[in-house]
Formats: sequence, C-alpha cells, structure tokens
Amino acid sequence: MTARVQGAGLRHAAPHPALPPLPATAAHRIILGLDPSLRGTGYGVIATRTPQPVALTHGTIVCPRDWPHSRCLAHIAKTVREVAMTFQPTVCAVEGLFFAQNLKTALVMGEARGAALAALAEAGLEIYEIAPRKVKQAIVGYGAAQKLAVAKMVQRLLGLAVLPSADAADALALALAQAQNLERRRGHLKPLQPV
Amino acid sequence: MTARVQGAGLRHAAPHPALPPLPATAAHRIILGLDPSLRGTGYGVIATRTPQPVALTHGTIVCPRDWPHSRCLAHIAKTVREVAMTFQPTVCAVEGLFFAQNLKTALVMGEARGAALAALAEAGLEIYEIAPRKVKQAIVGYGAAQKLAVAKMVQRLLGLAVLPSADAADALALALAQAQNLERRRGHLKPLQPV
Repeated sequence: MTARVQGAGLRHAAPHPALPPLPATAAHRIILGLDPSLRGTGYGVIATRTPQPVALTHGTIVCPRDWPHSRCLAHIAKTVREVAMTFQPTVCAVEGLFFAQNLKTALVMGEARGAALAALAEAGLEIYEIAPRKVKQAIVGYGAAQKLAVAKMVQRLLGLAVLPSADAADALALALAQAQNLERRRGHLKPLQPV
Repeated sequence: MTARVQGAGLRHAAPHPALPPLPATAAHRIILGLDPSLRGTGYGVIATRTPQPVALTHGTIVCPRDWPHSRCLAHIAKTVREVAMTFQPTVCAVEGLFFAQNLKTALVMGEARGAALAALAEAGLEIYEIAPRKVKQAIVGYGAAQKLAVAKMVQRLLGLAVLPSADAADALALALAQAQNLERRRGHLKPLQPV
C-alpha cells in the first residue's frame, strides 16, 4: 500500500507541461502550512528551493486539556505570529472543505482556525485553502491516502531525518501542495473563501 | 408583548438576597460584551456604576461581503484589540451554547469567535460565556424574548438616547448580564470552556 502510494506520489515532481517554471526570484518562496486545532495545531514552514524544497521548521502547538479555551486561542495566535516573524513566509495554506463530526466540533475547529488565520492575515500573509483530498493527491498522488503514507512522503520530499509528527506532517503537506499550486497555476489562485 | 417583557425585566435590578453587594472598588467594573460573526460582530463596553451602568461605546464591526475571509478575521481581531486598549475592560462576555444551522455556519461563526477571543485573551481579558437564554432572562426576565424587546430594555437600562443596532444591543445585553453575574456570583464563575 505504502509502496504503491509512494510510487504514485512521484508524479508530484513532474512539471505541468502547459506552464513555464517559476523564476528563482519568484514571490512566495517561503510557505507556511497550517493544520489548526484547539489542542494540537500543526505547522510547517518550507522554502521552495531547487532541486527540492527544504523544511525551515515544523512542529505542533500543544494546548493541554486543562487550559481554558481562551488561553489556547491566545497561545495559538501568539505562536503562529512568532513563527511568521521568525521565518517570514509570505503565504499560508490551510485545509479547506474539511469535515467535522458535529456542530460543536466544527465550532471549536473554527475557533482555532480563526485565532491562527487572524494573526497571520494581520501579519500580512496571503491565505489559501486546499481541500484535504487535493493535498493527498499532490503529495502521494492518491486522494484517499492514509496519514502515515502522507507523513512518509513528506519526510522523503523534504529529506527529513525523522518522520514528522502527524500534525506537523499534515501542515508540511499543505505547504508542499501550495508550492506545487503556485508553481503550476501562479496568478490563478483565489483568495480564501468562506468554507 | 413588549410591555410584558419589559415589566418582567424589572426583576433584573433586584439584588440577590443571599449575597452582599460588590464594593465600589470591585474588579471588573468595565465589561466588554461581544457577539461575533464574520460580517457583523457586535460589541459593547459598559461601566458598572451606581445607580445604573453606563455604555462607554458600542457598535458593529462590519466586513463587506466582497472581503476575503482572512481579511475579515484580521479586521475583527484588530478592532476588538483597539476597543480593549481604548476602554480597558478586564472581562469579556460572549454567547455560549448557541446554535448554528449547519457545519459550515458553525465553522465560520467559530472563526469569527476565535479571531476575536484570541486577541482579547492576548490582551489579558478574562473571557466568560453566557447562554443566550440566560442573557435574555437577565435582561428582560424572559428566556425566549425577541430581539427587539432585548434591544429596548438595553436602551432603557443604559439610558441610551437611540435604540442600539441589533448586533450592538446583543453585545451590550451580554455585558449587562455579565455585570449581573459578577454581582450575584462573584468568585464562582468558571473560565471559558469549550462549547
């Protein structure tokens, strides 16, 4: 399964035949991927270099269960702002069209997203959404790929010595998918829309 | 209907017999009420004075339909931060246990809440939730009161010359309900919990 997925994933590196490659000085060479949730927000920053992108940082913003809700939101906003100031990404990719189990879950996920995206938009980042299926397709070439397959391909694409945590892998996958989007469709992406 | 509601609402002013009144120097004398939504976030700041509270400011943070999502979130965060810096409230009351029509609505409402609450929690405010029904009970003495009845009672309780807009009235009602909570149950309120 993993082998099949990884094999299919190699397609990601093939340039789109109809569009020219980006110049080396192109904008958005540093990309933040973000997978927000109240207790564990994954983040990952990549630089789009030749021959392959590199990870500048990645990790999880952990908020313990006994923290009140508002403390988590403040911590998420503060941390993503620090990441943005330190690594100076110009664009952020988050999941769009995702699923929540129920209204309460959707509300809480929305709060974490809102805390993070407000801080990043205030810091001047452009924010884009990518559907989870598209992220998986971009990274492993298979829209229903499992989390571990995505993490392993992320590790391989970025040459990471250690398998990234699940949250960070999802965030790095978003950043890599966004890099691919920018390369293929530069100038044609829509700004963030209500999901 | 309105007369009945307003008449019942007079109960709100009656002090709880089992608890002593707050001293004049009590904390949380300036309270921010907030009714977040992506396109129109209501806010209202009151000061708890004798014989009646006064409104320091109130309004709606409007985000036009053609603004991208992330721009709205940044504008909400920036504006509530400015309100907090200008009027120095120490506590914020938002609606808890509210209802959304569907997952998408809940997510978008959550995003607006998260943007606002993260900024306020970072500014040091304590954040409390009050169920919509409790707000109406506190203000008009009737948990299923209509919006106009709430707005009229808010206008009366704060001695406002003009009926506040619906969003601002809801926010001021939250602040008034929170003032009442603090007066009656000081020290027994729980911090914000996931809703």
